[in-house]
Amino acid sequence: MFARLERTKVFRDPLYGYIVVDYKIISDLIDTKEIQRLRRVRQLSGVAMVFQTAEHSRFTHSLGCYQMANLVLQNVEGIDVLNEYEKVVFLCSALLHDIGHGPFSHAFENVIQTSHEEMTVKLILNSKTEVNKVLSKVPSLASDVANVIAHGGKFPLIEALVSSQLDVDRMDYLSRDAYFTGAAYGHIDYFRILRSMKIVNKKVLVRASGVHSIESYLMSRYHMYFQVYYHPVARAYECLLEGIYSRLKDLVSNDQEVDASIDSFISVLKNNDDIDSYIDLDDAYVNGFIKQLTKSKDKILNTLANAFQNRHLFNFIDLAYEPNPELIAEIKTKYNNELKKYYYKEAKVSAVAYLHSKKSDINDIKVLLPNNQVKSLDQYSPIIKSLTQSSYKMVERIYYFED
Amino acid sequence: MFARLERTKVFRDPLYGYIVVDYKIISDLIDTKEIQRLRRVRQLSGVAMVFQTAEHSRFTHSLGCYQMANLVLQNVEGIDVLNEYEKVVFLCSALLHDIGHGPFSHAFENVIQTSHEEMTVKLILNSKTEVNKVLSKVPSLASDVANVIAHGGKFPLIEALVSSQLDVDRMDYLSRDAYFTGAAYGHIDYFRILRSMKIVNKKVLVRASGVHSIESYLMSRYHMYFQVYYHPVARAYECLLEGIYSRLKDLVSNDQEVDASIDSFISVLKNNDDIDSYIDLDDAYVNGFIKQLTKSKDKILNTLANAFQNRHLFNFIDLAYEPNPELIAEIKTKYNNELKKYYYKEAKVSAVAYLHSKKSDINDIKVLLPNNQVKSLDQYSPIIKSLTQSSYKMVERIYYFED
Amino acid sequence: MFARLERTKVFRDPLYGYIVVDYKIISDLIDTKEIQRLRRVRQLSGVAMVFQTAEHSRFTHSLGCYQMANLVLQNVEGIDVLNEYEKVVFLCSALLHDIGHGPFSHAFENVIQTSHEEMTVKLILNSKTEVNKVLSKVPSLASDVANVIAHGGKFPLIEALVSSQLDVDRMDYLSRDAYFTGAAYGHIDYFRILRSMKIVNKKVLVRASGVHSIESYLMSRYHMYFQVYYHPVARAYECLLEGIYSRLKDLVSNDQEVDASIDSFISVLKNNDDIDSYIDLDDAYVNGFIKQLTKSKDKILNTLANAFQNRHLFNFIDLAYEPNPELIAEIKTKYNNELKKYYYKEAKVSAVAYLHSKKSDINDIKVLLPNNQVKSLDQYSPIIKSLTQSSYKMVERIYYFED
Amino acid sequence: MFARLERTKVFRDPLYGYIVVDYKIISDLIDTKEIQRLRRVRQLSGVAMVFQTAEHSRFTHSLGCYQMANLVLQNVEGIDVLNEYEKVVFLCSALLHDIGHGPFSHAFENVIQTSHEEMTVKLILNSKTEVNKVLSKVPSLASDVANVIAHGGKFPLIEALVSSQLDVDRMDYLSRDAYFTGAAYGHIDYFRILRSMKIVNKKVLVRASGVHSIESYLMSRYHMYFQVYYHPVARAYECLLEGIYSRLKDLVSNDQEVDASIDSFISVLKNNDDIDSYIDLDDAYVNGFIKQLTKSKDKILNTLANAFQNRHLFNFIDLAYEPNPELIAEIKTKYNNELKKYYYKEAKVSAVAYLHSKKSDINDIKVLLPNNQVKSLDQYSPIIKSLTQSSYKMVERIYYFED
Repeated sequence: MFARLERTKVFRDPLYGYIVVDYKIISDLIDTKEIQRLRRVRQLSGVAMVFQTAEHSRFTHSLGCYQMANLVLQNVEGIDVLNEYEKVVFLCSALLHDIGHGPFSHAFENVIQTSHEEMTVKLILNSKTEVNKVLSKVPSLASDVANVIAHGGKFPLIEALVSSQLDVDRMDYLSRDAYFTGAAYGHIDYFRILRSMKIVNKKVLVRASGVHSIESYLMSRYHMYFQVYYHPVARAYECLLEGIYSRLKDLVSNDQEVDASIDSFISVLKNNDDIDSYIDLDDAYVNGFIKQLTKSKDKILNTLANAFQNRHLFNFIDLAYEPNPELIAEIKTKYNNELKKYYYKEAKVSAVAYLHSKKSDINDIKVLLPNNQVKSLDQYSPIIKSLTQSSYKMVERIYYFED
Repeated sequence: MFARLERTKVFRDPLYGYIVVDYKIISDLIDTKEIQRLRRVRQLSGVAMVFQTAEHSRFTHSLGCYQMANLVLQNVEGIDVLNEYEKVVFLCSALLHDIGHGPFSHAFENVIQTSHEEMTVKLILNSKTEVNKVLSKVPSLASDVANVIAHGGKFPLIEALVSSQLDVDRMDYLSRDAYFTGAAYGHIDYFRILRSMKIVNKKVLVRASGVHSIESYLMSRYHMYFQVYYHPVARAYECLLEGIYSRLKDLVSNDQEVDASIDSFISVLKNNDDIDSYIDLDDAYVNGFIKQLTKSKDKILNTLANAFQNRHLFNFIDLAYEPNPELIAEIKTKYNNELKKYYYKEAKVSAVAYLHSKKSDINDIKVLLPNNQVKSLDQYSPIIKSLTQSSYKMVERIYYFED
Repeated sequence: MFARLERTKVFRDPLYGYIVVDYKIISDLIDTKEIQRLRRVRQLSGVAMVFQTAEHSRFTHSLGCYQMANLVLQNVEGIDVLNEYEKVVFLCSALLHDIGHGPFSHAFENVIQTSHEEMTVKLILNSKTEVNKVLSKVPSLASDVANVIAHGGKFPLIEALVSSQLDVDRMDYLSRDAYFTGAAYGHIDYFRILRSMKIVNKKVLVRASGVHSIESYLMSRYHMYFQVYYHPVARAYECLLEGIYSRLKDLVSNDQEVDASIDSFISVLKNNDDIDSYIDLDDAYVNGFIKQLTKSKDKILNTLANAFQNRHLFNFIDLAYEPNPELIAEIKTKYNNELKKYYYKEAKVSAVAYLHSKKSDINDIKVLLPNNQVKSLDQYSPIIKSLTQSSYKMVERIYYFED
Repeated sequence: MFARLERTKVFRDPLYGYIVVDYKIISDLIDTKEIQRLRRVRQLSGVAMVFQTAEHSRFTHSLGCYQMANLVLQNVEGIDVLNEYEKVVFLCSALLHDIGHGPFSHAFENVIQTSHEEMTVKLILNSKTEVNKVLSKVPSLASDVANVIAHGGKFPLIEALVSSQLDVDRMDYLSRDAYFTGAAYGHIDYFRILRSMKIVNKKVLVRASGVHSIESYLMSRYHMYFQVYYHPVARAYECLLEGIYSRLKDLVSNDQEVDASIDSFISVLKNNDDIDSYIDLDDAYVNGFIKQLTKSKDKILNTLANAFQNRHLFNFIDLAYEPNPELIAEIKTKYNNELKKYYYKEAKVSAVAYLHSKKSDINDIKVLLPNNQVKSLDQYSPIIKSLTQSSYKMVERIYYFED
């Protein structure tokens, strides 16, 4: 049904050796400008300020997800319940799930008030995008891929494989972020996990004999969160970005001129349906206008842009580690003025190794016992059950900028 | 004080790149026959029946412990509280701590009713061994090294570094066993751990900022236990050995002749102070007499030896997984005879990710907070606290041999 | 003499585990904006178009060179002939040797007609740079570091260690580029090489017993050249850049307006002593103005910028592989017009595994025989001798752009 | 045609992640005692005296060859010219090709005067072996597998894939020996090689675009020879073995009694068709009787056995490195007596990176040019051509034993 390439394409990848593409439609999608744009958006934004080798892009992760989807198709027992069309929906969803990410995504989503998932869906459905043009050659494919990404419910098995507690996205990014940061925690045994999975009644189950590999994976993920993704210095870098974004937004709202080329940014601020402008935004775009802003006449933009450029980051206090009420009071007083909005930030992050959401079935990992009974992971594994509570960790920090 | 080699010796090692020896005494110890014997004793005995590449010897692990001790001396803050003599005690203890292991050690210790630690101490102190001769060139060194290994209390810091919840032994063997089995769990971040450690008042503390690396290490160790060290097939292989050992012991006790060359084995059975005979025992020795026993006139030895040789292992039932009372009853009936002793075995193994023994300080990991307060690991880390209970796992299996 | 940090700084690095900094001056240099700018300049430019994970920056390589210099100081026999001042000169030179690189350096050097080494020296000596301010705290340090990089002859041993046939630069980049591309060829055994090196009479010699590791290193380097650095697609990407740069240069020379913000670029074109503008140039800068040029009114800039943005690369013909004289004639005819300058390029690259330059001693690797005789590598190793001729390879390609 | 297992078996392997078995016949072969015996024969014999971690067995290599054959079937273009029967012949041949190896094979082949290939063929064809019983369930399979191993000419393509200049055997052992020794040279890019290969007219060709990966592979192999396989200390260990074997053989020929249990050894010495005795021989067997010989009344056996046990190896002189004619003369004089046979050995080893044997087509690697022309590797690659001569290296050593 789906055309194959005459000769398969391969992409060298340090994690998998090679990533193999043989469907023509996958090759065409990789060549679209929406996917190519991801070469210019780093996967881990400010994390590279701490783990300096974390310079890999969302493009390499997107190829990696696609490859992990291939590995699912080759290794998971029972996956042949998907027909070829569904397999292609799966592969396309894996490849495309991140195209909606903006540059320095965390800070960015706050300012444009949409999520990257929503933007991904828009880009897939909007007839002006190259991705849409490629998908539209096959009836219903664009809307089906969008349905998967939007958790629309039409393909629950594919949704679970693309985005759940145990999906191709997480399996690739934990491995990849560990490889590129050099952090030891993310080395998950994905092949063991894949061989533990079994599709029964269109649900992803994990054999009881493989639960240890899931326990290990959940702990890896947890440690990556606190050691890498939530690293205070990475967040301090993003505070600078948020300060700049906020200031720009305020100036734009008040119709004040900004002395830098930021038309696309303004356009997206006003209307995030402006796909052309959205596509225009990438790390280079943001780095570019921040560099221009180092000469801005606006004092705040000028200060923050220079700080960004030369890695003069926000300071921070960890409220649990350094419970210094006097210092905190002093800082709060100092920033209790119009600068507070740009120079001061209270941030909370929290994570737990595993959360069994009662609302949503997709967020529960199910275990298949030898007697064919099925249990929730936290019911089956006492370790996981205890971690659902004990591993909950909240970090509260005050970030502030000192000139 | 201690002589150095003219040119440092290096041993290529896949884990560390190179293992460097520059003290002459270490080089001399490596050349003794007690250390060289460890080349002929596999680290993981029957595990190679499941993870076929787990063929590495206790010799490579012993060099690895020595190297890990070097890394401790180079990287741990405050370690210079040890003077040069004490550092050499530490290096020698790390290198020598396993010389008392017999072949297929687990099964072996049962039959000769002593522990490998006791045997190590005997070998270090007995003036007939080459190890003793080398150590005795330095006054008190042999007895001090023996003191460390026997947990004699003279050098509590060195004891803690050589054998505790977080020591050079475990850090090497988890890494090494992971490398040689290909199991993914054991990849601990030992460099991060070493940099988290700090010696304060002659105690090993772990900085609060490094606790995540300890959490990760404890989970790795836990998973290695159940996935590798306690693997049912590895145990099934050792059941064969225990059957053979028991039968031999019974024949010897009854002064019956054994049609194989097992003088040293018999000698050690009768008197484990017979050092010469003990040194004679290694994997080759055991494999050798088992091969002879494949032609034994004793029916039981003949059967078990042939089974051993051709990997015809004991069957097993996991009582939790396959709660089949009828089958169990049937097996118990079948083996309720004089064969039971050799053909049937009830085995329990248990482990927990972390145990804070109230009795012994050495078995508690201590955390150093930023305010210089010190807490027990399980008090400090809610994750560890919960795991001390939830991770307790006992596996009960019935092993039985079917001809 | 040189101040140490109170607590050593470490940088996680996937190649070395950790990079350790304990001299305050090294820490201060890393914080300068000239070094920080290298975070925004990719090491391999267009290579990421082929090896998509080759996204690492010159910053990580600079830290890596510094670390390799540390490894030299720790492992090479005889290196203590350097006093502490000279060791610091060595470490600073290793860290700083690449700060003069512009964005997409290869194409860039052509257009501004200077080399990155010259620019590095300028940045080190110019009193306006932060690097110069840090170095100038120690008398003569700035000029001595510049002397090393300019091959000024004051410190021949340090020069040889920083830039020769076998230096810290090459040893880091081969390892690093292999790690980040996933190409298998660059895995050199640098520890073995370091242990083979010996400093005698202030010269770097390689022991005869380690020559095999040098042979292997030279072959690795050679294969990295042709498989990675000279990859035709990477070059095709740089052709686009060169087309854009040339067009911009022509417009600027003719005082025509350019509809993009390229003041710093223009300033450097006119005067490469303009340090402030030079520092302003990085990958983001170039990507930024190329994005603006996608809307340029200049047809050529508009075309090439759009092609660059969407990875519509130059085509190429390899003259040796596809000796198609008709096609070549056709192409030459087609581009025989005013577009030729921007749309057509004849490119030759060549390399040889080892070249013993008779002119310059620094480019010869010297072998130390057991009898203390010293021979040139190509005299000693028949393999290398034969490779000096047989491995010479020249690749001639015609690149051309089709709209 | 060939039965599949109900559930595929997997073997964890550090090189490939997992080795997958789904043909029942392969699983049955792995369980035979001839294959299981290889667990007790180390791949690299005396090399573990130098690279102490080189303790892996021929069993793991045999599984690895089988896996590499699987990778060939999955990745090489044109391989589907083989039908299923031929594919199974290929897989079986890869798995079984080393079953004829004796313990410490190099020294052993000299004394029993046969090659391991001949023994492999005998074991496959002899109806008493378990391997033969398994293969004989399929008509003609045993003789066809034997034909491949004996280079009988019936399946030239399979022969080339199993044993040539570029075959599954070499690709596995170079990778494996590098992994287990920690030597850096053997890391070949086998996936790149497999993708370069193409089967045309039942011949294995290598695309010109992949020749660099072959050049790199040949250099790796070459360096592994001299750095690992021919390491003088490994050979010094084997000299001891040869001395022991020779002395035993002489005693046996003269009908003198030997005071150790060596019936099987004697039986094989007299008749290498005695399959049962042959199977009995493994490393444990040899280590076992050597340990008995440490108490032998025969002075020579006693001396050599004790030396073997305690790693008191032969000394050696490298004639090229240490051209000390006086020492050599002295040694020759000293050993010019009846001990010479056991205590003195002149050894030559030589290798070349690539040899294009004019006699045998199978030993030439053929290159496929873009124009479909085919050239010999040494005609196509100037590097290889030069290495055929320049890389030839002969090492001559005198080994001698000093009590």
